[in-house]
Amino acid sequence: MIQNLEDTIIAPATTPGTGAITVIRMSGPKTFGIVNDLVLFKKGSIEEASGYTIKFGTIFNDDFTILDEVLVSVFKAPHSYTGEDSVEISCHASKYIVEQILLKAIHLGARAAEPGEFTKRAFTNGKMDLAQAEAVADVISSSSAASLRVAMSQLKGGVSSELKTMREDLLNITSLMELELDFSEEDVEFADRSQLTDLIDKVYNHITKLANSFKTGNAIKNGVPVAIVGPTNAGKSTLLNTLLGEERAIVSDIAGTTRDTIEETMTIEGILFRFIDTAGIRESDDAIEKIGIERTYKKIGEADVVLGVVDCSDSSLSIKESIEDIICHTTKEQSLFIVLNKSDKENISTNEVLSTLPDIKTISISAKFQTGIEELKAVLADSQKGRISLNDETLITNIRHYKALSDAAEALDRVKNGLGLGIPTDLLSQDLRECLYHLGTIVGEISTDEVLGNIFSKFCIGK
Amino acid sequence: MIQNLEDTIIAPATTPGTGAITVIRMSGPKTFGIVNDLVLFKKGSIEEASGYTIKFGTIFNDDFTILDEVLVSVFKAPHSYTGEDSVEISCHASKYIVEQILLKAIHLGARAAEPGEFTKRAFTNGKMDLAQAEAVADVISSSSAASLRVAMSQLKGGVSSELKTMREDLLNITSLMELELDFSEEDVEFADRSQLTDLIDKVYNHITKLANSFKTGNAIKNGVPVAIVGPTNAGKSTLLNTLLGEERAIVSDIAGTTRDTIEETMTIEGILFRFIDTAGIRESDDAIEKIGIERTYKKIGEADVVLGVVDCSDSSLSIKESIEDIICHTTKEQSLFIVLNKSDKENISTNEVLSTLPDIKTISISAKFQTGIEELKAVLADSQKGRISLNDETLITNIRHYKALSDAAEALDRVKNGLGLGIPTDLLSQDLRECLYHLGTIVGEISTDEVLGNIFSKFCIGK
Repeated sequence: MIQNLEDTIIAPATTPGTGAITVIRMSGPKTFGIVNDLVLFKKGSIEEASGYTIKFGTIFNDDFTILDEVLVSVFKAPHSYTGEDSVEISCHASKYIVEQILLKAIHLGARAAEPGEFTKRAFTNGKMDLAQAEAVADVISSSSAASLRVAMSQLKGGVSSELKTMREDLLNITSLMELELDFSEEDVEFADRSQLTDLIDKVYNHITKLANSFKTGNAIKNGVPVAIVGPTNAGKSTLLNTLLGEERAIVSDIAGTTRDTIEETMTIEGILFRFIDTAGIRESDDAIEKIGIERTYKKIGEADVVLGVVDCSDSSLSIKESIEDIICHTTKEQSLFIVLNKSDKENISTNEVLSTLPDIKTISISAKFQTGIEELKAVLADSQKGRISLNDETLITNIRHYKALSDAAEALDRVKNGLGLGIPTDLLSQDLRECLYHLGTIVGEISTDEVLGNIFSKFCIGK
Repeated sequence: MIQNLEDTIIAPATTPGTGAITVIRMSGPKTFGIVNDLVLFKKGSIEEASGYTIKFGTIFNDDFTILDEVLVSVFKAPHSYTGEDSVEISCHASKYIVEQILLKAIHLGARAAEPGEFTKRAFTNGKMDLAQAEAVADVISSSSAASLRVAMSQLKGGVSSELKTMREDLLNITSLMELELDFSEEDVEFADRSQLTDLIDKVYNHITKLANSFKTGNAIKNGVPVAIVGPTNAGKSTLLNTLLGEERAIVSDIAGTTRDTIEETMTIEGILFRFIDTAGIRESDDAIEKIGIERTYKKIGEADVVLGVVDCSDSSLSIKESIEDIICHTTKEQSLFIVLNKSDKENISTNEVLSTLPDIKTISISAKFQTGIEELKAVLADSQKGRISLNDETLITNIRHYKALSDAAEALDRVKNGLGLGIPTDLLSQDLRECLYHLGTIVGEISTDEVLGNIFSKFCIGK
């Protein structure tokens, strides 16, 4: 995507064909000239209009019949979203009308905007940095109070200001190192070597803390991952369907019905959960089912919460083995709940089994008869409330930012170790530069066409 | 739908969740007060702002974090779409944000708008008459140059001004009749009785001409109805699929595959056609198929164009019988084309058969091998060009208007006949009033809550 800021770009900012009106955005140096040729205003030209005003006008067909009557919102550079002269044309939401207006504007010299090109221009023209630009898409797709708050914080420069602090600290480190360098001929080590180490530790901790916030940030943005696991035919898919209140997964009495993992999100008490239904765990000769079971173990690893579902009507031995298998695949960082399904058919010796196992949290339900489901939801929400609490802490939600922070931390770790090993400071400067580079990619101070193309191509047209 | 103009109404005017921005409309006496409580503006209150200006502001969550930054377009009564104080709030196109803004505004005293309520208010406040309000929905759903032109003409008052002329003429008639009435005691008949008759004829012709334009108007709005008919297995469904370029209808070698009638529209040379695939005509014992065949005959009756499809590879006798059956079910007003399908397998005696039939237009195609299809499209377009030509004539496209005009014509016909039969003019005044009443319903001078409810409930919310 080669960007030519001399181009005037146009695209609908809302979807034509639905609703009452459609808004078409146009931005670039020729915007006002094109609008004057496109729209006959009741009085005056658009150049005479002030920014932040609305003009009423008519767009005609080639045979002088009326195509549509429109409202044109005027934004003058630099006081616009893109920082350029731009307009928003509000017309009737007919696909035909929108198509005609776009064709006419393109005929008059505009070009159809590429995905995310308006926001890319806002970035290029310094109206926002790259992390803020990325937040625009997150704000639009946010579906809960928590995910919106994180995205809005990033849009308003939350992540960017953390990075600014880090970069200032890193520049301090550079000065201290250079000071040592200046006197290196004299083989002098300054007394404030400890100050340098402290500063590096501080920045390192700051970077890793922000990087580690990704797990929480991602849970807020994409949902807390909850793996539903357990032996075949324990009722995992029935539980997913009951939770969602719809027939999402195919259920049958045949063990091994679910082979693909199925993911669905739902909000419980304001917290977004991403439920992952998995293939039942059992010895299998079926090649496809085997792959499914391998994936199940992988999914357990990625989850923050594990719901281990067992069938209460099974034999005590089976229940015990199933629970042990689940526990063995769960880490300490994960919240594990053993869901005792088919509670209506409960085997009286279940409690005996449980008493032989280490301290585990259990909850009895019947997915089929929908008992215990509300209790299960409450337990899930409680387990995450402390974590997803909305405080002022900056969270990152973007995997690109996470990778850059991890790379920056790694480079700074090399500086730390190098200093400890007594490696001369001038040899460490490359690692320091690398650390600064990775942080710079987040806000876009350092960016390549490829990186920008990759980010903005995921936007919708009109953003 | 009871309308209280004291209410302030709110609804999205574009679809949230798609595109870059969503526009939320609010209208009514409390609009500015609610907006001032809802949005923190950078400077000044909304009352201080002029109409047709845009204000930048922030909407906060209850905990003072930012919900969204928005642009508010200000429209002051009576210079707005509804004629009331109103705003358009442009926010990020997140469903969550839009939902929150709506909830907050409703909490502050607004009410969720009913379908079409903004346009209904425009009608109630005299910004447009009922025929114009109905045209708003037609403009938005228009999908071709011709249908947009007809809808835009109606929106700009084309139909309304024709009706105004008619009503003026009818008032002239009333005066002339009353003049006669005033002198009725003296048993005087005025010399200008012929003038009265002429005037009634003129209005009658005007009304019927407008009523008759519905057939063309409807063809422009909904597509020229083309019935595809013929014996079973002649390839009617294959022809429909070939025309549309997609597998719309299920085709098989089994005669009688199509039972339901299938309708699909496509535009050929700027003219919208509505193709109706029908069940094949044959003697059948299958109850469902019989119903299908009955419907076929009904559909032939409703079509403007009939494509009679026959199988060239059939016996001469079969082809002859099939064509005769199609001709027998076609009226003189309809354009009939005999489509000789499977031209690759053409029976050499087809021409002999055709020569024994009255003058019919034929076209050879192979629906399967896609030959002759472009020629068929050209023939179809040519057959309608004269009719769908875009001149300045007012066309009606709304069945409600058609019915009102037909009723008005009927009432006026009674006046005409009554005068001819020498029925005293005072007895005819009731029919005259009825004629005026029917015309009045079109522009909404006379309207009931039920009629209004029926019209606006078909609108989308936000219009």
